[in-house]
Amino acid sequence: MEKVSIQPYYRKAYYYETDQMGIVHHSNFIRWLEEARIESMSQWTCSYKKMEEEGILIPVLEVQCSYKSMVTFGEPLAIWVYPLSFNGIKLSFSYEIKNKETEEKKAEASTVHCFFNKDKKLLNLKKENPKLYEQFLYFFS
Amino acid sequence: MEKVSIQPYYRKAYYYETDQMGIVHHSNFIRWLEEARIESMSQWTCSYKKMEEEGILIPVLEVQCSYKSMVTFGEPLAIWVYPLSFNGIKLSFSYEIKNKETEEKKAEASTVHCFFNKDKKLLNLKKENPKLYEQFLYFFS
Amino acid sequence: MEKVSIQPYYRKAYYYETDQMGIVHHSNFIRWLEEARIESMSQWTCSYKKMEEEGILIPVLEVQCSYKSMVTFGEPLAIWVYPLSFNGIKLSFSYEIKNKETEEKKAEASTVHCFFNKDKKLLNLKKENPKLYEQFLYFFS
Amino acid sequence: MEKVSIQPYYRKAYYYETDQMGIVHHSNFIRWLEEARIESMSQWTCSYKKMEEEGILIPVLEVQCSYKSMVTFGEPLAIWVYPLSFNGIKLSFSYEIKNKETEEKKAEASTVHCFFNKDKKLLNLKKENPKLYEQFLYFFS
Repeated sequence: MEKVSIQPYYRKAYYYETDQMGIVHHSNFIRWLEEARIESMSQWTCSYKKMEEEGILIPVLEVQCSYKSMVTFGEPLAIWVYPLSFNGIKLSFSYEIKNKETEEKKAEASTVHCFFNKDKKLLNLKKENPKLYEQFLYFFS
Repeated sequence: MEKVSIQPYYRKAYYYETDQMGIVHHSNFIRWLEEARIESMSQWTCSYKKMEEEGILIPVLEVQCSYKSMVTFGEPLAIWVYPLSFNGIKLSFSYEIKNKETEEKKAEASTVHCFFNKDKKLLNLKKENPKLYEQFLYFFS
Repeated sequence: MEKVSIQPYYRKAYYYETDQMGIVHHSNFIRWLEEARIESMSQWTCSYKKMEEEGILIPVLEVQCSYKSMVTFGEPLAIWVYPLSFNGIKLSFSYEIKNKETEEKKAEASTVHCFFNKDKKLLNLKKENPKLYEQFLYFFS
Repeated sequence: MEKVSIQPYYRKAYYYETDQMGIVHHSNFIRWLEEARIESMSQWTCSYKKMEEEGILIPVLEVQCSYKSMVTFGEPLAIWVYPLSFNGIKLSFSYEIKNKETEEKKAEASTVHCFFNKDKKLLNLKKENPKLYEQFLYFFS
């Protein structure tokens, strides 16, 4: 079984994401991390949408972002999501945001998450969904 | 029984609501309408949050906004919400957004809504919740 | 000279665009219109970014949107932008938002705009930039 | 000369800030930090708007946020901003977000900033604006 290779997530910076400083507002980077994470997780394990429909939510416990250079309207971006750690209770990712063409580094980031059931209570993935646990374990190892 | 008087909803324009044109992005006006509408409805009838908890959702069917002058970061705003029509199935509002201090007109808007139950199916308020129907009727008449 | 054919703008609905009703918040449709309009205008005339760098801003004077059916997280969307009117002072567009795959209609919308110079004063495109005026005229005719 | 006492910044969670998990989306906390920081800085030194008009921008270099408990639609929030460090080149803040009434901790956060001039180049506040430098120094000491 071959390891899935990591593909960046591509998107452009939208006009409404800029602020009066003339560059993208820093809060939008946090939203881009989510876009890229959801896309990556859907490729690695199963559709994020399907996970939620089966009652597995993956809220954010921590987010950290270092802004390296400004992003302007229309800039093409490549966002890399790397699996960092997973133990069935918590999982974490690191990220790099780059200009897709120049490869200039825009930001480095990380997030920590847990699993929730539909009632927003902590969920032990190993107990509650062993199959999905194995999928995550495989990818994070 | 005395008619409830209409009070404006106050808020400032936030930094992250501006765009690189140096003024508030037009999409945020649509969000302000919601803030003002929810606050006003909560005063007129009952808490919007409580309505949702009882299974009554009020989605937007139509929105229209005419931008009259630019809003800049930090500007104090007064948003007036006026009940326009209500028949137990649909309801509509009109709005005025002004600078709170100068009273300069910033925008005029209107929205049309219906009622949904928790399954996001159309709800006839008169049948499903006569008490709330009467409260709405009173305010819109 | 052949008329440019109109191509839809594609994008998915993001997780952070949903609200607690479980569907995409209506204000985001207004932002999608802008994404699609900027992309379309860039194809028809010249890059929107370049226009701004040359001192031509295109603010929104009016926006109207009729919501036809709900959009859920992850839904693939096709947004059609149609040139409606243009006279060198004002321009307007109409829009259709559909599910890219099922072609289910999600919304119909329209926007009205004017031209501003860098000082956010009204700009007569015919006088100030005849070449760009011709490009717009061609596309809107 | 008496030290300015730190006052929290108050605001409610808006409907459009929730996501389909039924709670406020984590990215909005980052925006709340900015609201509170701008309000606090305006009280401590001078109006943030005026600083920008004088050509002093304060971009974000780093942001970190730990989410302690969920925030729901309509929740009243108190956001505390604490000055952490300042050397004329960089400045940093820490934050606490609490339910205004129950005082339940919602999040802890920190941000790091620098100063930019209008051309978005690094600015040494001590050299470029000694008076403002003194004001910041006073408050951060």
